[in-house]
Amino acid sequence: MFNSAVAALNAPPVSTVLDWKSSYDDTKGPLIDMSQAVPGYAAHDDILTSLAVAAVDPTLARYGPVEGDPEFRTAYANHVGQIYDAKIMADEVQVTSGCNQAFVASVLAIAGHGDSIMMMRPCYFNHESALSMLGIGIDYVDCDADANLLPKLSDIDASIKPTTRAVALVSPNNPAGSIYPTELLDDILTLCQHHGIWLIIDETYRDFLPLNMRLPHRLFARDNWQSNLIQLYSFSKSYCLPGHRLGAIIAGREVINQLAKIIDNIQICAPRIVQKALTPMLASMAEWRQKNREKIAARATIFRAIMADTPGWDLLSSGAYFGYVRHPYKNVDSIQIAKNLASKAGVLVIPGAFFGAGQGDALRFAFANAGREVISQLGDRLKGVPL
Amino acid sequence: MFNSAVAALNAPPVSTVLDWKSSYDDTKGPLIDMSQAVPGYAAHDDILTSLAVAAVDPTLARYGPVEGDPEFRTAYANHVGQIYDAKIMADEVQVTSGCNQAFVASVLAIAGHGDSIMMMRPCYFNHESALSMLGIGIDYVDCDADANLLPKLSDIDASIKPTTRAVALVSPNNPAGSIYPTELLDDILTLCQHHGIWLIIDETYRDFLPLNMRLPHRLFARDNWQSNLIQLYSFSKSYCLPGHRLGAIIAGREVINQLAKIIDNIQICAPRIVQKALTPMLASMAEWRQKNREKIAARATIFRAIMADTPGWDLLSSGAYFGYVRHPYKNVDSIQIAKNLASKAGVLVIPGAFFGAGQGDALRFAFANAGREVISQLGDRLKGVPL
Repeated sequence: MFNSAVAALNAPPVSTVLDWKSSYDDTKGPLIDMSQAVPGYAAHDDILTSLAVAAVDPTLARYGPVEGDPEFRTAYANHVGQIYDAKIMADEVQVTSGCNQAFVASVLAIAGHGDSIMMMRPCYFNHESALSMLGIGIDYVDCDADANLLPKLSDIDASIKPTTRAVALVSPNNPAGSIYPTELLDDILTLCQHHGIWLIIDETYRDFLPLNMRLPHRLFARDNWQSNLIQLYSFSKSYCLPGHRLGAIIAGREVINQLAKIIDNIQICAPRIVQKALTPMLASMAEWRQKNREKIAARATIFRAIMADTPGWDLLSSGAYFGYVRHPYKNVDSIQIAKNLASKAGVLVIPGAFFGAGQGDALRFAFANAGREVISQLGDRLKGVPL
Repeated sequence: MFNSAVAALNAPPVSTVLDWKSSYDDTKGPLIDMSQAVPGYAAHDDILTSLAVAAVDPTLARYGPVEGDPEFRTAYANHVGQIYDAKIMADEVQVTSGCNQAFVASVLAIAGHGDSIMMMRPCYFNHESALSMLGIGIDYVDCDADANLLPKLSDIDASIKPTTRAVALVSPNNPAGSIYPTELLDDILTLCQHHGIWLIIDETYRDFLPLNMRLPHRLFARDNWQSNLIQLYSFSKSYCLPGHRLGAIIAGREVINQLAKIIDNIQICAPRIVQKALTPMLASMAEWRQKNREKIAARATIFRAIMADTPGWDLLSSGAYFGYVRHPYKNVDSIQIAKNLASKAGVLVIPGAFFGAGQGDALRFAFANAGREVISQLGDRLKGVPL
């Protein structure tokens, strides 16, 4: 009675992991939740106040334009232009309900049954399951564990098939935290242009780049980026508003025309009060965002130090919100390890198995969720988790 | 470079029609907008105030459960149970971002490539385009213009193919306004059970049933409705909150398990502050809803009287928010007529052509959008629109 492509999917990974919370009895102290990627601090008071002002406005309770509210599209286009030293137009913005929706809409715009999208493995689980659900094929490229879990350009090139409609990647990466170097991104877009396919780049974590990195990439500075590039973003992490569901796509006008049809079918328009509240905040919260970037970078530093001090645990890659770690238990799957970490050590993480085939020796730690003192306890918790 | 199934779709119909506004110069008085179905009155002040209270709560800015916030699911299950004299459980509720999303998630749960869904024509345009976009086939049943634009049971039976996974219908209907009699719905569900397929019923307009009708239907009173029934609802019309994007699905637990995977991929969770604000309002706004139902029913009465008094214009069906009208211009397509109505008469309606093949002689009037005095001007506006 069900669509076999959906029936074959696992239950939502984060829900599954959050259910493990109840297995822990606090013997080691309060639970350390490094599972779902959520900022471990609240939204700025000014944002919450603006949301409340917008909430009482009955005109914002009405439908808005499918592509997004014009003022917000303009503000976001200007904001993106500043970040990337480029010129982005308001009509190159499609507002969405979060970045998962941005991905679903983008892949539907360019791929149907019989087509495929290339993904880097470890994969962000919702990208993999969204493609499976939609009946779109996946071409996998395994990242290099000896090179910060980045893919090799030659592997991407060799894996492009006649059915491949796009290369999809996440930078800073979920789950690995790895930052794609600007040169690698340049080369990948050139490769996509050469093959006449798209590059879909999910930059949900771009506001948490390493402190010494000024530009996330130079792709928007190219002539004709519109012909091959689709960029995705979420406001959930940078503005601490995941419950309000807001994301955005930057793409050429022809892509936006396709996306608008899809978003109309999926949900007519994105929620409006959060668009209204954030319109002036993209510029005015620059300092707050930078402070949070520094805060998260400090957490990354502590996390790396802790992992270096924890024998047997091997940090494969880290950056932005995440550390991707090889656990010391040979031949035991990450799901069993993660369950044990939850119930015995009070540490909630996402098992590598949820990020694709062959990832059973790894675990994802979302260190951004926890403060420095909490992260400092990790070493003791990880040592000697019984199997 | 695009998915041909998406490239083949028209631009969002409502956006297209709203663009025609600018062609009118107010010569006949202010524009009468009967295009997009939106209540012509504002949300209740108590709802807006509750939204503002929820908006400043940072805990509601965090992710919520994929299936919806537990208190809201419980409140909605109880509410639906009361409306239908039935027992609905909280875990039979999946909260969505509006009813279009409820439809997309429901059809994805039960149909993939090679499967088909049966639709009644005239079709709600986003249902038709959503199926096309997803690569799911459509089996059409043409409604009977001599029977209030309802389908014949025998036509539905005769149109079920081996690929058909569900019968999908909308009652009260969009665009026709027709109300499916409880006996017809009973028969359709029995037919679906007999064939082992689903009945998907979109009841977005159920709070605007005719005043003499107590129960929308008796389907939830059946044993085992969970095996074949999926019901969709939108909070946009009844609570005047389309900009906040909230809808819900009632279905058996096994369906909910599939839906949760899909919603997780599409947008993780529905926006939360509107769930929080509406939780107590489903019960407390009963009187306000009834008052609005009476208000809209009065608009329907005036609309019918006006159409009866307007020579050449033939009201095919009406109810809830909509009247579906045959225009007097033989061999001229509804799109041309609707454009002329906009530019020359200042009346914005949706052309029948947007509701499926063979509908070019009709127009949809969303009379719920306009007050009684505005509706009263319609007759004069329609008379003698030049072609």
